[in-house]
Amino acid sequence: MQYFLEHLATCVSAMSGVLAARGKRVDLFGVVVLALVTALGGGTLRDTILDLRPVFWVDDSSYVVTAILCALTTFFLAHYVTRLHPMADSALQLADAASLALFTLVGTEKSIAAGVPPVVGIAMGVITGTAGGMIRDSLIGEIPMVFRRQIYLYATASFVGATVYVVLEGVVERQLLRFLAIGTVFGLRLAAIWWKIYLPVFEPKENVHQG
Amino acid sequence: MQYFLEHLATCVSAMSGVLAARGKRVDLFGVVVLALVTALGGGTLRDTILDLRPVFWVDDSSYVVTAILCALTTFFLAHYVTRLHPMADSALQLADAASLALFTLVGTEKSIAAGVPPVVGIAMGVITGTAGGMIRDSLIGEIPMVFRRQIYLYATASFVGATVYVVLEGVVERQLLRFLAIGTVFGLRLAAIWWKIYLPVFEPKENVHQG
Amino acid sequence: MQYFLEHLATCVSAMSGVLAARGKRVDLFGVVVLALVTALGGGTLRDTILDLRPVFWVDDSSYVVTAILCALTTFFLAHYVTRLHPMADSALQLADAASLALFTLVGTEKSIAAGVPPVVGIAMGVITGTAGGMIRDSLIGEIPMVFRRQIYLYATASFVGATVYVVLEGVVERQLLRFLAIGTVFGLRLAAIWWKIYLPVFEPKENVHQG
Repeated sequence: MQYFLEHLATCVSAMSGVLAARGKRVDLFGVVVLALVTALGGGTLRDTILDLRPVFWVDDSSYVVTAILCALTTFFLAHYVTRLHPMADSALQLADAASLALFTLVGTEKSIAAGVPPVVGIAMGVITGTAGGMIRDSLIGEIPMVFRRQIYLYATASFVGATVYVVLEGVVERQLLRFLAIGTVFGLRLAAIWWKIYLPVFEPKENVHQG
Repeated sequence: MQYFLEHLATCVSAMSGVLAARGKRVDLFGVVVLALVTALGGGTLRDTILDLRPVFWVDDSSYVVTAILCALTTFFLAHYVTRLHPMADSALQLADAASLALFTLVGTEKSIAAGVPPVVGIAMGVITGTAGGMIRDSLIGEIPMVFRRQIYLYATASFVGATVYVVLEGVVERQLLRFLAIGTVFGLRLAAIWWKIYLPVFEPKENVHQG
Repeated sequence: MQYFLEHLATCVSAMSGVLAARGKRVDLFGVVVLALVTALGGGTLRDTILDLRPVFWVDDSSYVVTAILCALTTFFLAHYVTRLHPMADSALQLADAASLALFTLVGTEKSIAAGVPPVVGIAMGVITGTAGGMIRDSLIGEIPMVFRRQIYLYATASFVGATVYVVLEGVVERQLLRFLAIGTVFGLRLAAIWWKIYLPVFEPKENVHQG
């Protein structure tokens, strides 16, 4: 079950990598690379920083295969589908929120199991959930989506979920803990989309300092 | 022989790092950093992800020295040479294709020797061949050249060559295997430049999904 | 004392991460991430490349806490302070130069202690001092500040200081060595700001080669 969910999350992330390439004149190979970076980047950073070896996709290359297949499918479908049915669009947003929740859980759980301090466990949950998308946006020359106001609590939802996991770890039973962490990220993200909740933006009226 | 070729590949990559800085108002130090990132970035990523220690240029710092010397030479020459002789330009493209081929071979061979699954070996060959240039382009605020259509099968040539290596590994003799992998990348890249072959671009007519 | 100085350097770097986000419509969470990347990025790269485990902030998470607190303070202050008092501005530049000097020293010292070749020790000093800012600028879509002429010997001051450390290591006594390395970076940076010293820019009159 968890294995299936992780591959689903990998697939949805790969799709977001492909879709980010629209209008950028990126070729087929670039699209696949963007998909791989988005789907595997966060976990790679986590495993490399924490020295958890081998890196998850080096150990089990089925993640690479899943990401490539989903990227290719999305690439070719996008040539024929000029406009997604509204229901498909909502399904994609749901799947994306589920991915964020799942990656956050896996990242936090794996880090805490490796014995890092709580604040590092939270950071690793957020990195696993969001760093792939950051590298993707940086490669295509955009300010990472998760930094911007319009995205309605993306990284913040991940942060709150990871914090819930770390705080309740050892207090509640493992399966409940997982459910609470995933539910927090997923619920917060959907609520933020629904009610258009966002964080304050850093926008002082005047420049205060020329670096 | 291989040692000489690797240093040649490092030198040519460093030159491409310098040339990418044109028109960006990058200073001398920035140029050297770009050269180092381009020449050493791919192999650093490979060694770090696969935990092959020490990282190749930490172990043998002559790679760093080669990259710096080639960068400085290119920097100062470029002040005097306003237009390359067409033959020099072609020589540079040949050397660049040779670099790509050699880096791909070294990356794939080193990874397979470390015991990774075939698909990871291919990925590492492509990363070693192209990631340095990707980081370079990302640092100077461009969409990585290898993603774009105009570049005529750059990363794709690397991918096909790495695949040839992985498929024929154990089937043909080592020296022949190396020759075939290098020849595939080199030949494919030159053929693509010559006949202007490129991959399809991801360009759906309309936006399908607002991430 | 050194512990206090390292946290001061971390704090000042985090502030520069926050201030870089101005005018980019980055939300509160994005600001904190930029601050963390700026403050911890260089050291993370150093520890990961040299395989010094655990990475410094995984081992001692007080660095993460310091960076977050300084980022939040700067974020909220910047809403009320529309223009820094000239003295505060100068203090910030002094603190920033001190950060660069301290990070360079720590990076070089830690690397040399790990037994790397001299040229790698210098590279690691520069990486520790400047890579965080490079990743920050790359994430917000700017050409890294340290590459540009206007910045007056930023990375170059780091490079010269690291070289002083490596050359005099074993020649002079440890405390003097540290003092000389820090003084070189700090003095060179301030002198360059004061007399507007910069490196030559790579700006050939005409394009010489279309990569």
